[in-house]
Amino acid sequence: MSTPRTLEWHGETDGYLRLIDQTLLPNQLEYRDCRTVEEVWEAIRSLRVRGAPAIGIAAAFGVVIGLQRLPERGRGAFQQRLREVSGYLRTSRPTAVNLFWALDRMESCVTGRTETQSPEQLHRRLLQEARAIHDEDLAMCRRIGEIGAALIGPGQGVLTHCNAGALATSDYGTALAVMFVAREQGREFSVFADETRPLLQGARLTAWELQQRGIPCTLICDNMAAQVMKEGKVQLVVVGADRIAANGDTANKIGTYGVALLAQAHGIPFYVAAPSSTFDLSLANGDGIPIEQRDPREVTHGFGRQTAPEGIAVYNPAFDVTPARLIAGIITEKGLIRPVEEAAIRALLG
Amino acid sequence: MSTPRTLEWHGETDGYLRLIDQTLLPNQLEYRDCRTVEEVWEAIRSLRVRGAPAIGIAAAFGVVIGLQRLPERGRGAFQQRLREVSGYLRTSRPTAVNLFWALDRMESCVTGRTETQSPEQLHRRLLQEARAIHDEDLAMCRRIGEIGAALIGPGQGVLTHCNAGALATSDYGTALAVMFVAREQGREFSVFADETRPLLQGARLTAWELQQRGIPCTLICDNMAAQVMKEGKVQLVVVGADRIAANGDTANKIGTYGVALLAQAHGIPFYVAAPSSTFDLSLANGDGIPIEQRDPREVTHGFGRQTAPEGIAVYNPAFDVTPARLIAGIITEKGLIRPVEEAAIRALLG
Repeated sequence: MSTPRTLEWHGETDGYLRLIDQTLLPNQLEYRDCRTVEEVWEAIRSLRVRGAPAIGIAAAFGVVIGLQRLPERGRGAFQQRLREVSGYLRTSRPTAVNLFWALDRMESCVTGRTETQSPEQLHRRLLQEARAIHDEDLAMCRRIGEIGAALIGPGQGVLTHCNAGALATSDYGTALAVMFVAREQGREFSVFADETRPLLQGARLTAWELQQRGIPCTLICDNMAAQVMKEGKVQLVVVGADRIAANGDTANKIGTYGVALLAQAHGIPFYVAAPSSTFDLSLANGDGIPIEQRDPREVTHGFGRQTAPEGIAVYNPAFDVTPARLIAGIITEKGLIRPVEEAAIRALLG
Repeated sequence: MSTPRTLEWHGETDGYLRLIDQTLLPNQLEYRDCRTVEEVWEAIRSLRVRGAPAIGIAAAFGVVIGLQRLPERGRGAFQQRLREVSGYLRTSRPTAVNLFWALDRMESCVTGRTETQSPEQLHRRLLQEARAIHDEDLAMCRRIGEIGAALIGPGQGVLTHCNAGALATSDYGTALAVMFVAREQGREFSVFADETRPLLQGARLTAWELQQRGIPCTLICDNMAAQVMKEGKVQLVVVGADRIAANGDTANKIGTYGVALLAQAHGIPFYVAAPSSTFDLSLANGDGIPIEQRDPREVTHGFGRQTAPEGIAVYNPAFDVTPARLIAGIITEKGLIRPVEEAAIRALLG
């Protein structure tokens, strides 16, 4: 059984982007139609759509939307507007590199054509590129699942953090794709899902996706991971990624670095699953990855109720960086990088 | 500035126990008067009063209350009822040994007197003992603070987990006592408080206590502790304890073991602060400490709103055990145990 489509383009160049409003899950499955670039920006910013690959896809369609209501479609105006729209969407969230990768692709796909093609033709080309990004992501996710599935042994316990599932991608996911394929292959295993404070993507999204696909899942609070490992219930950790530096240092949802340290302390292999678009080879290591700081109210008012004293200081980084030395391997659609070393990364990504 | 009294006995043997309903903090500061032993049991069970020392004190007064409405105060009935009440209160929560320690003390204090003294005299003796437990706890907490304060250097960052403050004891706390005394001594430092899922004692109680005492405090989600340590913001970890085995293995709020592992990975000393009543020398190590499992709804419905899919499996242990090897020292009212070794523990506790 598959989960509903995370993102779906409706229509042609004058169409709109329909996405699941993930802030309402698991209690409500509601769709949101984005018909302006501002709505796409807001959906990314507010985590209605989240997960590095899904953000990239949404932004690509956001470019198509942003070029729809161009009052005067002269060539110069089109190009200027393309740069504006792309620049605007780049400000939605800073950490996931797939956002910038997708927007670079969108800008590049019309480079060199702007003098010879009409704005209408260029607009169609942009839609084609956005659809390609969407379709390729689906194929990449399945391939990641196929490559990683062998890592899950029969009867094992697999721990994951945050949500790197169908909801974080076009479909199927990255870390969860590994589990979905292992399950399709008939393997029996169970999953521990960290709830992932402050926004509970693990409790709300991962637990829901696994439940929908019939994979046994036990929800835990983030601070229970060490105990579950100590009890011998976990043999493998698999998480997604928002940006991976050239040496393999990996930015992912806050808490991932801690899970990697705990896995190391218990001798449990820790894997990252991500498409090649998640790599940022311009960064030598993780020190250069910008870490988004989010609203303190996510921590103090996260559940519709104030759970901390008024005026308390809060530190709320959305991501952390796990050093490559803690990562047993990185599962990409092009193959498994193991051990995680810069030469192997550059060789595989070509 | 002191926080309000966690527990307060009003009246004589026919009195009642007034306690802060900690489930309502920090939004409401409300008191709850317990006039039956069932109300005391429920207050412990529901975490209206929590923290190992405070549970022991509440249970001691619970014994006094339980013996109030004895219909026929014959000597035999009194003794039988004492055993019943004590046995009943022992079922409220399994992990904190101070509960059993306090109830043992209450039963022992009338042993050998039941033949010579009237039930009224015995009842007064019990109240006297409960008050002694209460008063001694206050003195112990201050002493723990005085002994531990030197561990905090000027300008340091101190991380704590859950609440081991005035609200967890008669007053002043254990882990927080160390901070309160350091502050009284004029030391400037800041505290990172883990919010401590599922019941957020760190966000609701520790952050509130530190704020009330004017100590700079930054609230973080549990899964941010590793990142804060990596950024060099933490030089010391101090937590409380619910039960300490003869070898120093320490049961404390779930998540403590993970914090200890993270501290080790970053070379940060990890200390436990607890009164001697927290030690259970009948247990050779932490394997024998019973770990309370609590209602899955604490995780899935913790904030008045469902945050996980219906029917999802949940693992919700309330405590974990940190092995002695991860603990730099244990701060007790009798002195600092460092390094943590069975011989040193037995020598100090005499």
